[in-house]
Amino acid sequence: MSDLLARVRAGDRRALARLLTHVENRTPLGLAAEREFFRQTGRAHLVGITGPPGAGKSTLIAALAREARRLGLTIAVLAVDPTSPITGGAVMGDRIRMLDIASDDGVFVRSLTSRGRCGGLAPSLCAMAHLLDAFGFDLIVLETVGAGQDDVEIARLADTTVLVLVPGLGDHVQALKAGTLEIADIFVVNKADLPEAARVVGDLRSLQRLAGAASPHIPIHATVATTGDGVASLLQGILDHRTQLDATGQRLERLQRRLLSEVRFLALEALEERLDSALAALPENERAALVTRQVDPRTLAERLLKGLRLNLPLGSH
Amino acid sequence: MSDLLARVRAGDRRALARLLTHVENRTPLGLAAEREFFRQTGRAHLVGITGPPGAGKSTLIAALAREARRLGLTIAVLAVDPTSPITGGAVMGDRIRMLDIASDDGVFVRSLTSRGRCGGLAPSLCAMAHLLDAFGFDLIVLETVGAGQDDVEIARLADTTVLVLVPGLGDHVQALKAGTLEIADIFVVNKADLPEAARVVGDLRSLQRLAGAASPHIPIHATVATTGDGVASLLQGILDHRTQLDATGQRLERLQRRLLSEVRFLALEALEERLDSALAALPENERAALVTRQVDPRTLAERLLKGLRLNLPLGSH
Repeated sequence: MSDLLARVRAGDRRALARLLTHVENRTPLGLAAEREFFRQTGRAHLVGITGPPGAGKSTLIAALAREARRLGLTIAVLAVDPTSPITGGAVMGDRIRMLDIASDDGVFVRSLTSRGRCGGLAPSLCAMAHLLDAFGFDLIVLETVGAGQDDVEIARLADTTVLVLVPGLGDHVQALKAGTLEIADIFVVNKADLPEAARVVGDLRSLQRLAGAASPHIPIHATVATTGDGVASLLQGILDHRTQLDATGQRLERLQRRLLSEVRFLALEALEERLDSALAALPENERAALVTRQVDPRTLAERLLKGLRLNLPLGSH
Repeated sequence: MSDLLARVRAGDRRALARLLTHVENRTPLGLAAEREFFRQTGRAHLVGITGPPGAGKSTLIAALAREARRLGLTIAVLAVDPTSPITGGAVMGDRIRMLDIASDDGVFVRSLTSRGRCGGLAPSLCAMAHLLDAFGFDLIVLETVGAGQDDVEIARLADTTVLVLVPGLGDHVQALKAGTLEIADIFVVNKADLPEAARVVGDLRSLQRLAGAASPHIPIHATVATTGDGVASLLQGILDHRTQLDATGQRLERLQRRLLSEVRFLALEALEERLDSALAALPENERAALVTRQVDPRTLAERLLKGLRLNLPLGSH
């Protein structure tokens, strides 16, 4: 099995795909790889791309990938698919649009399914991004649907966070969850050929004015992902943001914040698992005592916490 | 101060409003009230109402409140306002629509601001609902914006969960986060006078057919909240659901599940706080060791967990 690690070290892409699955599923090999490859990270630029469903994020990322290849940059995409409410499986339709670039060795696309847990995906996503970084990709894109708090937190895991909006999705500004605007380093108004696009740009400018000095001036890029219009300029904006982070010393600051977030996600996930095990093992009479009001929820929560064992190693679920 | 508890016990509504603030802020008095009044809960029916921003939930709830009063039922509303991305304050506009019924003693409306934390609001919401239940309200409505996982979890805290959709909000089905559909006991298509309403109803029917036998048949109500059309029938649907829960013995099952969720939220919140304190106290050299890759995130997370002290009482933040 350590043959797989050697093949990844040698640059074998098929081995990389297999090892990513081990990392995602946290097999013993995956955990070993995670620790080993972490030491070789730090070269890649992480780009978080988020926005509401229907904003055209996948098409935009495919166009960005083509531009990146034109500049000789390699690019890996980790796309978080919202779980379908019906089948429980990933909504894979969007991924198909990237197929035309998937045969290029400088492009790597992997979909992950959100498990519906608060922040549940973040630890796997971080570990997979580290492996792709160690493998040598120049750009690593994390694509999430910006619909909830978890997505905001995932967006925080990037060096550069791009928020994609489009005209015609109702009240786009109100629909943004608290915190979504603050995390953006770059705004994109996609489908900019639609008549209402100018209004979205105007609304974003107004919002920035309202936010005043508290918020830095955030660039707004207009794109038409399907034709590629504005995409080269967006990629340049992302690379400029990287240069700016380097020049101001913010890159290391963000890296530290990002790695601490990862630590937090890992620890929180472990705590949640311990808690859920303790809850599952709660005797029937203690459950019944809640319903008959002999014990109140806070007292029972305190009792559970006291019994929690935390000094186990973090590992597979 | 225990005078306040006595006044609440005597049915004083102004005292109730003040005590709710203590419960929300977890003052010592609030925590004492929480434990005391929990014993007197169990009579109220909890109705969770969720749906995307712009679905007209507040107007619908105001109309439901008027219907409830017509039937002689008292009703309390706990409305979770999404935090404004700019001001950090609550988006209070919607609340104003309820003013015309706010002078009625049988109606009580309270807004809470989501703190932007995963499930951060749920423990306060539960404690406030218990107090309103003990106070004697027949119906307690929990209103949330169905935009993220936290809202889905809050919706699970109700006996009857109502999912409100409207035509014209883009792809309403795709926009639903995983799990949102499964939690609904009743669907409402509001703004049913709009031309596209029939399509939304049709899409919901198709979704249910697709889900097949796995999903029970969920009633769909068409309403026009602004005129009150269909609202009496919706309220009857909610009361019928309660009767059905009683008849099938599911009410106690749901109550137990709900109280266990509350225990879980309380414990998880305490764990998150302990973890964040530990992270804040992390020495600079350990942070730096992450950036220089001398320690990997998983190893640091394990070290943090080992040092966590859990046997403190749960209390105010």
